[in-house]
Order: sequence, then structure tokens, then C-alpha cells
Amino acid sequence: MEAISIGLLGLGTVGTGVVKIIEDHQDKLMHQIGCPIKINKVLVKDLTKERAVKIAPEMLTTNAKDVIDNPEIDVIIEVMGGVDETRNYLLQALKNKKHVVTANKDLMALYGSELLSVAIENSCDLFYEASVAGGIPILRSLVDGLSSDHITKMMGIVNGTTNFILTKMTKQGSAYEEVLKEAQRLGYAETDPTSDVEGLDAARKMVILATLGFSMKIDLDDVRVQGITNISEEDLQYAKQLGYTMKLIGMAQIEDDKVEVSVQPTLLGETHPLAAVNNEYNAVYVYGEAVGETMFYGPGAGSLPTATSIVSDLVVVLKNLVLGVNGKSIISPQFEKRMKEPNEIRSKYFLRLHVIDEVGVFANITSIFTNHGVSFEKILQLPVKEKGLSELVVVTHSTSLKDYEEILVELEDLSSVHHIKSSYRVEGNGHS
Amino acid sequence: MEAISIGLLGLGTVGTGVVKIIEDHQDKLMHQIGCPIKINKVLVKDLTKERAVKIAPEMLTTNAKDVIDNPEIDVIIEVMGGVDETRNYLLQALKNKKHVVTANKDLMALYGSELLSVAIENSCDLFYEASVAGGIPILRSLVDGLSSDHITKMMGIVNGTTNFILTKMTKQGSAYEEVLKEAQRLGYAETDPTSDVEGLDAARKMVILATLGFSMKIDLDDVRVQGITNISEEDLQYAKQLGYTMKLIGMAQIEDDKVEVSVQPTLLGETHPLAAVNNEYNAVYVYGEAVGETMFYGPGAGSLPTATSIVSDLVVVLKNLVLGVNGKSIISPQFEKRMKEPNEIRSKYFLRLHVIDEVGVFANITSIFTNHGVSFEKILQLPVKEKGLSELVVVTHSTSLKDYEEILVELEDLSSVHHIKSSYRVEGNGHS
Repeated sequence: MEAISIGLLGLGTVGTGVVKIIEDHQDKLMHQIGCPIKINKVLVKDLTKERAVKIAPEMLTTNAKDVIDNPEIDVIIEVMGGVDETRNYLLQALKNKKHVVTANKDLMALYGSELLSVAIENSCDLFYEASVAGGIPILRSLVDGLSSDHITKMMGIVNGTTNFILTKMTKQGSAYEEVLKEAQRLGYAETDPTSDVEGLDAARKMVILATLGFSMKIDLDDVRVQGITNISEEDLQYAKQLGYTMKLIGMAQIEDDKVEVSVQPTLLGETHPLAAVNNEYNAVYVYGEAVGETMFYGPGAGSLPTATSIVSDLVVVLKNLVLGVNGKSIISPQFEKRMKEPNEIRSKYFLRLHVIDEVGVFANITSIFTNHGVSFEKILQLPVKEKGLSELVVVTHSTSLKDYEEILVELEDLSSVHHIKSSYRVEGNGHS
Repeated sequence: MEAISIGLLGLGTVGTGVVKIIEDHQDKLMHQIGCPIKINKVLVKDLTKERAVKIAPEMLTTNAKDVIDNPEIDVIIEVMGGVDETRNYLLQALKNKKHVVTANKDLMALYGSELLSVAIENSCDLFYEASVAGGIPILRSLVDGLSSDHITKMMGIVNGTTNFILTKMTKQGSAYEEVLKEAQRLGYAETDPTSDVEGLDAARKMVILATLGFSMKIDLDDVRVQGITNISEEDLQYAKQLGYTMKLIGMAQIEDDKVEVSVQPTLLGETHPLAAVNNEYNAVYVYGEAVGETMFYGPGAGSLPTATSIVSDLVVVLKNLVLGVNGKSIISPQFEKRMKEPNEIRSKYFLRLHVIDEVGVFANITSIFTNHGVSFEKILQLPVKEKGLSELVVVTHSTSLKDYEEILVELEDLSSVHHIKSSYRVEGNGHS
């Protein structure tokens, strides 16, 4: 076979990394595939911009048709981002029988099932390893490495920005706003950090993971999402004192064929494998019925790590191309989606309250929990912070989300509860 | 396609797990492959033995030919262990055009390249994911997930027995012999633990990892091996005091196209991802030029975890069978082997000495290091343990193995050095 011809949509940070890896590792790639890889056309916004890689000017175009309708091109690599326009480009590319590799989590979380169907119809490959946890080959591990197992739980630190912020807040004892600024200065957070810090970015990745891991079409609306913007230094101190580490955890669980998916700040027991994942690193913890606990750790973003996943996907496409078996590896969801109801979602919770410091308050509060059948694993009653108030921190035993939410409403209504300061999910055990 | 027919060589702990997973997860497997999987014949030593799985008596045989020469069987799963006899069986099976999945690290470390060649000649698949780190899909991650990258370093905790022993020794402050007995009682160590505690088991796994990761045929003789039997409680206390964790680390590195492979007790900086891998768990840390740091964590042994890897390999074989592309995924080594010489192997070292407590001793010792151009990162001179002796602990800056070994010989010869108590490789940084 002569050279295989690649079209690139986008030449930003990740696109540049793709060009660099294809150039630098050409020998290794050729050894695996049996023929050279050639980049043919690249869609860019600005033809005159300075680029970090050398690329012949005639290879650049501002017209997407030069890439997606180009008869010479075998495979499209999409690293332009965005949803609506990009979706149209990729649908067209697939209809033109071009295989697609994408790093676009937003697109895959929203339109993944549509794009995969069109890929199957056109006997095309469509791979998207880089869309979740950058350089970590987690999707391939779910689909191939653990293909024989029944996966029952996935927990991911799948957003590097928030993990960086929480790590720094924990280690430095600094406030959220201050660490956010540091993260922005270092390039770990965007100028508008909303999508990261409110948990939306992580939610999109959990949609992709849950869909693959449970073989069930999960939608973005199915994910309960809570961000990290309200986490205080006090919360982190209590977490530490109780033997927990605070992480933004994407959680996907299946029990009795029913699923729950959430992204929430979570107090993890300090011995949990995810508790040691710090700074901008990502990791996905996978529990399989037969294999037990596994974890996949690595860089969640960055030009070259993300490009590694993209080009590794490309290698699979090209091996398939050489063997003539493209479009055969996409497996449609095996099951109809069934989501857990709030009365079926169970967890332990950390709750921090400011209460009026008067006789009978504690009894009133505990009776609310007792009425819902919820008991405490830990209780800390602490020195008065403000005049007339005292701070109450509890960790509950496992309770249903329905009961817990009702408890929160009833506590809000209680005149002796001054303020519910914070509430987080708890996973695993802290100090005894 | 009708049912695909499997032959099993062996029905011990792992073989039983394979039968169980194929039965329990039949629906998921069928969804992926498109046809049922049927176990046809099983080679056992004893036809009458009680089994943990239900299996029809007529499926059992004590004659290997009933499996390897059986025209009905498409794929052989080898879980009987052993080397010479097993090698002959698998060579015969491959010549009979049967695909092979094996969990046999001893066999693959010694005869992997021969078996893989014969597999290619006969257009057969030969997969062996379960041979390294049980349930962790590490081989597939190296070959597929990181296929586009240039891997420069692999560090593995690839032996669960020794990791269990070192974890307990560290946490309980107990002696090696005592913890070994506990491990044997709990089933984490064999009655004869030699192969585990002397590092041979880990060395075999590092041969397989290095061969795949560096695309170079590495032999068992290329691995420098040191076991854990001489590690003392004092060593672990010093490690902790200096900010390190002691692990038995399989190390494979490539620099300027030259390789070193070793298995050695190593002091890891406490923030290294492998430092938190405890008890019987395994993990493989992989450094790629582009991706940076990744780590794959999970159970290294056990019936069901190991069987998960085997049946996941089987799924790949069967997908290939359905597509008619077996035997195409084995990639022969790309490079000739080139090993580093001792003057090219560089590391930091921890060294603990008992020295005669007299004037000028320290100067004599340091001059030996200085003559070899080696300086110290840390020095601890400690209270006299025995009358007239004092304990000296140093961590060197990076030095060549050649220099370090010469230093050890010269220290032995020094009359003021009473005894070299211990010496370990150091990786990463401890407390500053």
C-alpha cells in the first residue's frame, strides 16, 4: 500500500501535537502499519498565522470542503472543537466514506450515538479515545482490555483544572478564588472557567464513559452535576481531620440493571486509589465484577498527551484499512437505558451546619435524621464560631438520595438551623 | 457463524475462573462476537477431582491430543503452567492452526519469540495479556493505547507477593520472616516462595514488558535481579525517615537506543504514583516521550482477575475469527537488542554501613566516593549501635553502576568499614 492520506480539521494546540507525533514517530508508525502516513490538507481559520510546526502553505485551507470532500483523503482527524458545525463536517466526512478520529468530548457526549450510527452505515471507523482523560487509553481499556467483564462502577477524576485547584487548596490551605487565579496564570484554567469548575466538562466525559462501560445510551441530562465553586477551606480541613480527601468525582454505577451518573465533590477515604491522584492529573477507577479494582492514571490534557491518543486511534484505523475491516469495531449499546430513581441512589454524606446554640437543638436535628431512618457514622460539635452559633459536622451512614434531600429541606425549615454550610457525597472510610 | 469451540489446557484456579466468566458473561460476549462460545474439551490431571465449576465429565480428558489435535476446536486457552511440555503442546496447537491464549509468563519470557514466529507462520493469533500483572490490561495498552508514542521507561510492581510483604513490613514494622509466614497463611505466598521473593517472577514479567514496550527481543539473562529477602526493618525505617517508600521495582529504560532492565528493591520518592500501590496490588508505570507519565493499576493475580484478561484476549481472537483476520496483529520486534554497559546505567543509591567509630573514618569513606566523582545527596551519621561502631547512611547523587560497584568493593576493603548492611537503588526525591 502507498502512503495513507490524512486530513486535519484544526491546527491548534492538539492539532500541532498530532502533526509533531506523525513526523517524529514516523518509523514506529510505519513498522506497525506497513506504509507511510502523509498529512494532506489542514483546515485552519487563519492561513498566515505562525505555527509551532513546519507545514507547507499549500497544505493549509480555510475551506472545510477541501478536507472533507477531498477524494485523496482516507482519514479525518478532528481537533477543531465546537459542536454544531463540527457535527455537520463529520457527518459529511463519514458519508464520504472517510474514517474519523476525534478528540471532541462535547460533540461525542451530545451526538456520539448519531455519529456512530452513520459510521456503521458507511462502514467507517470512528474513534474518540482522546475525548476522555487525554493521554490515558481508558476507552480502549473498557472496550478491549475489560471486554469480558461486567463493569459495575466507574469513578473518574476526569477534569484536570478542578483537580489542580482542589489539590492546591488542600495542600496550601488557600481559598478557591486565589487558587483559581493561580491556575489561570499557569494555563491550567481558562479565562472563563465555568465549564470546568461547574462540572460540565467532567459530566460530558462521564456520559462517554458510562455509555461505553454499561453499553447503554446515557445522555447529558442523566448526569447530576455539582461544581467545586462553593468548597471552602473549612470543608477541606474537616475532610482531612476525618481521614478523607476532597476530589471532584465523576461517578457512574449500575445495580440491578439501573444506572446512576453524577459529577460531585466527594470526600474519598484516604486509602482509595484515586485519593493520591494530584495536581492536573486524571485517573479513572473501574470496578469490574470479576477483575475487581483497577485504575488508569495519566495526563488528562495537553498537546502531546492528547495527540498520543489521537494518533494511537489513527494506527488502529490504518491497521483496519490495511486488513480491509474498517467499521467493524463499533459495538452498539446492548441495553435499554434505565436510570435509578432518587430512592434507589444510596450514599453516605458529609454535612456541615451552623446551628443556634441553645438547649434541645441537637435533639431536634437528630430526630429529623431518625425519622428518615438515617444514622450517623461521625459527629463533630465544634466551638462557637460566631456569637450564639455553633458548628455541627456529621457524616451519615448510607442513605437514599430521596431521604437525604428531604432531610435537607426539613433542616432548612428548622428555626434552630441558621445555615447549611456545605454538603458532599462521601465514598469509602475515613479515620476510625 | 455457529458456536466457537474452545479447548482448555488446565483447570486449576485460573482455568476455573475462565469457565466461570465464559458462563456468567455469555450474553455480553455474544453481543460483542455475534455467536456463542462453547468449551469443548479440557485437559486435566485427574478426571475424578471435585471442581468448583460444573463441567460435563465427557468434556474432561487426561490426553493432551484430545485438545490440541481436536479438529473441532478453534482456540486453545493454556492455563496449565510449566515450560517444556507446555511449549510442545502450544507449538503443536499452532501448527494445527489453532489460536492460542496463554497466561504463562515463564513460557513467554523464555520462548515467546519462538511461539510468536510459529503463530505468524500459521496465521494464528497468540495473546498473553494475563501473563503480566493479572487483571491489568497493560500489554494491550502498550501495543494499542500507546502505539503512537516512544516509550522510554517502564517501572512495574509486578509481583503481588513481594508487594504484600513489603507493605506489611512497612506498616507493621515487622520482620521479613514473620510477614512471609503471614503471607503464606493468607495464600499470598507459596510454600516455596523463592521465585517470588528472589525477584525471578518479576524478572520474567519485565522481559515480556520490555520486549513489547521497546520492540526489541529481551532475554531473561539481560535482567539484573535482586530479591527482597535481605531487607530489614531498619532499612524501611530509614527509607521512611528520608521520605521514601521501599518497593520491589521492575525497571526497564531505554536511552540512545540502549536498554537496561532490572528487578531491584528500590526506594521510591513518596509522591511517585507507584509509592501508593499497596498490599497484593500490581501497577505498571509507563513513561512515553509524548504522553508523559501514565500508570495502570489493578489486581496482579487471582482466579477471576487473571481469567478476565484471558477471556478479553479470547474476545479479540474471536472478533478476528469472525472478520477473518487472525494472525495479523503480532508485530515482530523493530530493533536489534542493545543493552547498556555498567558505565551507562545511572542511578542514585541508598547505602547503609557499619563503620568503626574512630578519627578519620568518615574522611576515608568520603574520599572513595570523591575519587569516583560521586557526591552525596543525604548523609545520616547515627548513634553507635554496637560498642565501637557507628551507623552511616548515605543517599548518593546519580552515579554509574560501574563506579558504584567499584565503590562497594573499595569500601569492603577498607579496614574501618565493619560491614555493608544494605544497598538499594533510589528513584525520585525524598524529603528535602
